Amino acid sequence: MNSNTPTFTDLVSSLPASVPFVGPETLERKRGKSFDARIGANESAFGISPAAQKAMQQALQQNGCSWYGDPENFELRQELAKMHGVQNDEICVDAGIDSLLGLSVRMLVEPGAAVVTSLGAYPTFAYHVAGFGGKLITVPYLDNHEDPQALLAQASDCDARIIYFSNPDNPMGTSHPAQRVQQLIDDLPPGCVLALDEAYAEFAHHSLTPAIDTSNPQVIRYRTFSKAYGMAGMRIGYVIANRELISGFNKIRNHFAVNRLAQIGALASLRDNEFLPQVKQRVEAGRQRIYGMADELGLSYLQSSTNFVAVDLGDGDRTRWFLEALTDRGVFIRMPGVAPLSRYIRVGVGTASEHEQFESVFRQLLSESATTA
Amino acid sequence: MNSNTPTFTDLVSSLPASVPFVGPETLERKRGKSFDARIGANESAFGISPAAQKAMQQALQQNGCSWYGDPENFELRQELAKMHGVQNDEICVDAGIDSLLGLSVRMLVEPGAAVVTSLGAYPTFAYHVAGFGGKLITVPYLDNHEDPQALLAQASDCDARIIYFSNPDNPMGTSHPAQRVQQLIDDLPPGCVLALDEAYAEFAHHSLTPAIDTSNPQVIRYRTFSKAYGMAGMRIGYVIANRELISGFNKIRNHFAVNRLAQIGALASLRDNEFLPQVKQRVEAGRQRIYGMADELGLSYLQSSTNFVAVDLGDGDRTRWFLEALTDRGVFIRMPGVAPLSRYIRVGVGTASEHEQFESVFRQLLSESATTA
Repeated sequence: MNSNTPTFTDLVSSLPASVPFVGPETLERKRGKSFDARIGANESAFGISPAAQKAMQQALQQNGCSWYGDPENFELRQELAKMHGVQNDEICVDAGIDSLLGLSVRMLVEPGAAVVTSLGAYPTFAYHVAGFGGKLITVPYLDNHEDPQALLAQASDCDARIIYFSNPDNPMGTSHPAQRVQQLIDDLPPGCVLALDEAYAEFAHHSLTPAIDTSNPQVIRYRTFSKAYGMAGMRIGYVIANRELISGFNKIRNHFAVNRLAQIGALASLRDNEFLPQVKQRVEAGRQRIYGMADELGLSYLQSSTNFVAVDLGDGDRTRWFLEALTDRGVFIRMPGVAPLSRYIRVGVGTASEHEQFESVFRQLLSESATTA
Repeated sequence: MNSNTPTFTDLVSSLPASVPFVGPETLERKRGKSFDARIGANESAFGISPAAQKAMQQALQQNGCSWYGDPENFELRQELAKMHGVQNDEICVDAGIDSLLGLSVRMLVEPGAAVVTSLGAYPTFAYHVAGFGGKLITVPYLDNHEDPQALLAQASDCDARIIYFSNPDNPMGTSHPAQRVQQLIDDLPPGCVLALDEAYAEFAHHSLTPAIDTSNPQVIRYRTFSKAYGMAGMRIGYVIANRELISGFNKIRNHFAVNRLAQIGALASLRDNEFLPQVKQRVEAGRQRIYGMADELGLSYLQSSTNFVAVDLGDGDRTRWFLEALTDRGVFIRMPGVAPLSRYIRVGVGTASEHEQFESVFRQLLSESATTA
């Protein structure tokens, strides 16, 4: 670099060259071959709605790729508003929750202002807080659950602008009942927004989602087509919030961010009443299968409200050993990054063949580790 | 809103509720029916590469929508690097140039710092400068071309962090030869980055793009699959720059921003050697047709290096009248937003039937305006 070299802003200069997640493709390039089972990114193993498939296929044939998507995401918002019993202007659609979390931090957090989350919670949220100069303050999980009480106390203490809270939780898969979340909402300190990530809400047994109340200007609900709807690769999600908050998103978002096929697929998914119940059933069956395997192997695990199950391997070093060995033998899987959560390995519900692949390698590793112990 | 109401950052509070562009779908909803010709957003009328179509179709059938895209965009960067004769880590792929412009401003422009562009140039760039608190300073076009001399002088005066320059230019369609652009690069003030938007580069007769030199830390080249490759609806574009600059993008971008189908389609497009020459030919034929029509009607126009032609209607009020009347009668079209550029209407190269539709309505309006004049 010569002396003419432009400089980054102080903030960007100060950021580390980190990434929230290493993708499975990166690991595949390192191994020199593809994974046999891809159960590490909480993607859906059960595809997309046939209606969405058909609609996107048609759009693809009719040259729907060449036109920009509707920057207002109007039809989709209309359908979502109907479904959630809110107004169109209480919804903002964007290219996935990751992007919406970035926008949330950008619009609410001045550099140096505090943001509260749980230690070990979603790394991409932490990435955005750092990226906009916020000060991330964490509280520990309590018995593998996010701890509303501790989050609230910390938020009060540090005058937090945002509490990030995912329910059901990622990476643990645990959840709180709707009533407990409502209490968290009711107890929010003045001026603090609850970023309520409900990416996995559709997988829960019972509703974990308190009634949506867009008159409350302190809550943003994050929803996605990436999980139960199986459209992670299409990049589309949305927030539901008070219209004042939505107006903030609209002031800074990339208006043409959502791809046209995703808009078409998402709309078709919503209008397909049969798909989601089937996915939920298959995910439930997949969880039971993981529970059954763990029971048989004498491993404890956490009851999951998501499409993955945290299985207890005793401690972080041991989990990391399993993770690396599984990766070596063709199973893409992840684990929580920090103790004490890192004693668990996060087993995604895969297809039947992915589960078999995982279980076979996992059993083998268990017996190898027993022999060497 | 109650007294608990959270507040936006000062910057976001100060932003107007504006959007860079009103989408054609918004206008269609207002009219209550679809447009017959969509020639206003510089989208391609000639579709996507058959290879891309096939690859995406296959991915769609094989459930490629359910997996996140590779956050490294590795294969695509590798192919692009080969094509441009640069290294993988001198390229950053993201969900379109709009997003990359936002990231550029975010990483280079401290609040209050100056950025220079031409008066009437790309509104989305201006939107991002405002969105990150930069101070946008404009210089006039010179004879309907961006004016490198004036941009440089202004950048020196105000210690600009970025000069935004599109070549070929949008909205005028004019261009500068490679040599002139190289001169602009050579004369950049220290610490100033040239954001060189080459979205339309493929449509030019002769190469307007100076040799790519990634050893120069002051230039970012923006390329896209939205225009000649016909993939506007898929959201994928990239920058080529010095690896130091690329490292900045990587520190703040949404790593999973690009949808998987777009990655697959873009890669297949690059490997299809036949598609692009055909598109260029058809665009050239379309331009000739617009020139021919204008000649016949006694209207002057600008020689275009893009997939649209600026046709002179005399003054902004008259252009606006035409634009509204065209919109009413089923033709989606746009015009430059500010004088003196606004005397031109921007006629996109459409399909044959779109052109006929436009030409028929346009001729009708010309005769109506002659009668009423």
